Amino acid sequence: MKHLNELFKYIDQNANRFIEDLKILCKQPSVSAQKRGINECVNLLEKIMEDIGIKVRIFKVKNGNPIVFGELKSGSSKESLGFYNHYDVQPPDPLDEWKFPPFNPVIKDGKFYARGASDNKGDLISRLEAVRAFLEVYGDVPVNLKFLIEGEEESGSPHLPDFVRENTNLLRAEGYLWEGEGVDIEGRPIVTLGAKGIIHVEFRARGPKIDVHSSRAPLVPNPAWRLVWMLSMLKGNDEKIKIPGWYDNVVPPDEEDIRLLEEAPFDEEADKRELGLKEYLLGVTGTESLKTLLFSPTCNISGFYSGYTGPGTKTVLPSEAFVRVDFRLVVDQKPDLLFRKLKNYLKENRFEDITVIKHSAYEAAKTPASDPFVTRVVKTAKRIYSLRPVIWPTSAGTGPLYVIRKWLGIPVVSAGGPGYPGSRIHAPNENIRLKDYIKSIKYMVAIISTYEE
Amino acid sequence: MKHLNELFKYIDQNANRFIEDLKILCKQPSVSAQKRGINECVNLLEKIMEDIGIKVRIFKVKNGNPIVFGELKSGSSKESLGFYNHYDVQPPDPLDEWKFPPFNPVIKDGKFYARGASDNKGDLISRLEAVRAFLEVYGDVPVNLKFLIEGEEESGSPHLPDFVRENTNLLRAEGYLWEGEGVDIEGRPIVTLGAKGIIHVEFRARGPKIDVHSSRAPLVPNPAWRLVWMLSMLKGNDEKIKIPGWYDNVVPPDEEDIRLLEEAPFDEEADKRELGLKEYLLGVTGTESLKTLLFSPTCNISGFYSGYTGPGTKTVLPSEAFVRVDFRLVVDQKPDLLFRKLKNYLKENRFEDITVIKHSAYEAAKTPASDPFVTRVVKTAKRIYSLRPVIWPTSAGTGPLYVIRKWLGIPVVSAGGPGYPGSRIHAPNENIRLKDYIKSIKYMVAIISTYEE
Repeated sequence: MKHLNELFKYIDQNANRFIEDLKILCKQPSVSAQKRGINECVNLLEKIMEDIGIKVRIFKVKNGNPIVFGELKSGSSKESLGFYNHYDVQPPDPLDEWKFPPFNPVIKDGKFYARGASDNKGDLISRLEAVRAFLEVYGDVPVNLKFLIEGEEESGSPHLPDFVRENTNLLRAEGYLWEGEGVDIEGRPIVTLGAKGIIHVEFRARGPKIDVHSSRAPLVPNPAWRLVWMLSMLKGNDEKIKIPGWYDNVVPPDEEDIRLLEEAPFDEEADKRELGLKEYLLGVTGTESLKTLLFSPTCNISGFYSGYTGPGTKTVLPSEAFVRVDFRLVVDQKPDLLFRKLKNYLKENRFEDITVIKHSAYEAAKTPASDPFVTRVVKTAKRIYSLRPVIWPTSAGTGPLYVIRKWLGIPVVSAGGPGYPGSRIHAPNENIRLKDYIKSIKYMVAIISTYEE
Repeated sequence: MKHLNELFKYIDQNANRFIEDLKILCKQPSVSAQKRGINECVNLLEKIMEDIGIKVRIFKVKNGNPIVFGELKSGSSKESLGFYNHYDVQPPDPLDEWKFPPFNPVIKDGKFYARGASDNKGDLISRLEAVRAFLEVYGDVPVNLKFLIEGEEESGSPHLPDFVRENTNLLRAEGYLWEGEGVDIEGRPIVTLGAKGIIHVEFRARGPKIDVHSSRAPLVPNPAWRLVWMLSMLKGNDEKIKIPGWYDNVVPPDEEDIRLLEEAPFDEEADKRELGLKEYLLGVTGTESLKTLLFSPTCNISGFYSGYTGPGTKTVLPSEAFVRVDFRLVVDQKPDLLFRKLKNYLKENRFEDITVIKHSAYEAAKTPASDPFVTRVVKTAKRIYSLRPVIWPTSAGTGPLYVIRKWLGIPVVSAGGPGYPGSRIHAPNENIRLKDYIKSIKYMVAIISTYEE
């Protein structure tokens, strides 16, 4: 770790160049949902990585976006450190809410505005620039580095699992740094040790061939009612999921998890104020709120549509109805098994008329806080940010990290990145603070340098 | 009835003039939902009626469309016959599905195309032309005539009840002819003796202040779920409404009603084919189907909306949700009482967070088939159409006829009109057959002439 000062000096001296690189990458649209600019972004990324000195392989994906894999051998180490990032971004809509064009980065008041500035191009480039620093200052890195960079994260990573299954040796490493969230409102670095799983399902019911007048209701089945009755069997208003066996494999939080939750800074009152809530569901408070948030399976209605929903009313009996439900899963729930249980449950309760479409399915995954890789990342965070990191045993959200954590058995930690609570990821005016960007490069350099010993 | 031939001769000789009058009226848009052309239509209608010789009074309605009341005294009779019609029409949308402009009538292959051709301008004009025939041929009518013509039927007749309450003497008559449906697929005249009531309700639930990421589901109430749980308490999948006391005042069909249903021509298999159904709800067939259709209260979801309903999926926890439910009522259910029962039921079951908006409320009403006024209308239909009329003890749909039937105790029968099963009322390419139009004028003349004896 004695060389950090040299490296940091190099980073400070080259800050403008690093910002320039981020500009170049953010200028290139790469919207997976709209299949926009994907190949151009892959070519650009390849050029940037090769210019740094990273060996790049582009893996074509059938009916999907290429996966970019980068590798850099260390002259001195047999260990490998992996990085997961994605080059695709969310659509920039609604466009008219942007202060600056989403794909023409603008710097103002120390902030860098562009789609992807934080999620995930800022994060990705900060990791690549850390490598550049090592190679330019010392001509070598103290650990083998692997970069797994996909182009469909914002569309549910449909092709990542197959890629991981087919390339286990290529991907092997002692630990993976997942895309990170940056810092919290107090500037504390955030370290997250897992993610929930998900099954996103659409249920579709059919009534008469075409919409009919609602006076026909005594004789004609109504698809919206079919969905209501079906849904009321999925979850009761005690928030318990009623599908038999749904909770069978749930692993409750352990003592270490609970200790982390007790230590986690969480302004419950501010959160409720922001949401406009008097209390949380079932009246939970304190550590119990966080336990509920992070360790409960969910069954959420994300969209419901049937019939006439314009102004006024229309006496119609709709011909169709659909509802979308996202079930978040916790460790060790099995998405495929649960989806089968769901289908059987519907069949047993005579809802075979309802079509069930699975949009996406992820497993949950977690790395224990006691894992040495976690210790390495957390200790370095503390040193670089001079503040106690916020450690979440898992995210309430979902990411595809189970393919590395569960399938390959590799510890995975989300950390780093130039994000802050005002980054507005997935929203108009996505931005980062330049000081966070430079700091996140230093943080990555520091993590890599821990392998020097 | 000896003079009918003279009257019919006059009608045949003046057919073109009657068609011209209908053209003039249909050319004038009068869309109540869009407040379009209302006053112009009222002025035009007044002119047409005064030209015929009917005394017209325009009743202004606060925040509503004027009610046109017409009266013609008979030189020989103390009895009065009433007519109910409306001059407003449904919006013409979707415009691009019209073969001809909706407000520029076109005649093609013996059919007259225009918005309002059947519902309800054709019906209205056929009645007015019948009066013209009497006055031009004999200079008198054999019964006092009253025309109650409102301009908000297509918007739920919100101001008709108050008008009737305030004008009971003016409206007094021995019987009312309500707007009629014309003929069925075999050319048989349709006579309908009642209509269901309705309460159209909107339920609105609120979740967090703004849409939030669905990972927040363990703590944040979801408004779509609130509605699902509430709805599942309103009606079970046995189609029974669960609100206590909902069926208390229901009058079941009597023997006469059932006899009419047994005689009613109803091609159940064709109907199911058209709807794409293997069977009706709860497997009913035959007369039981009609009994269910016409004598069951309903609870129909006409629209449900929450969250993201565009293509793909979005992991969102919606901030709001609404559902619209139309409850059809039968004789003698009381809308105000039932609405209170509904609100109490929600309160008792802790759904006070859900806002309930009443969009419209009508009572059901029926006239017994044995009523002499019904006999008069039915007998005349048989004579004019030379076919046995189809008599429905009630419609499955709803109309505001209870204000005359129940409040004033006057028999009300829906009959006449130029409609046929292909009239496409409320839809693009609304049309009538010219021969049906001329026949419906003769039918009205014949009904009026029954008062000569």
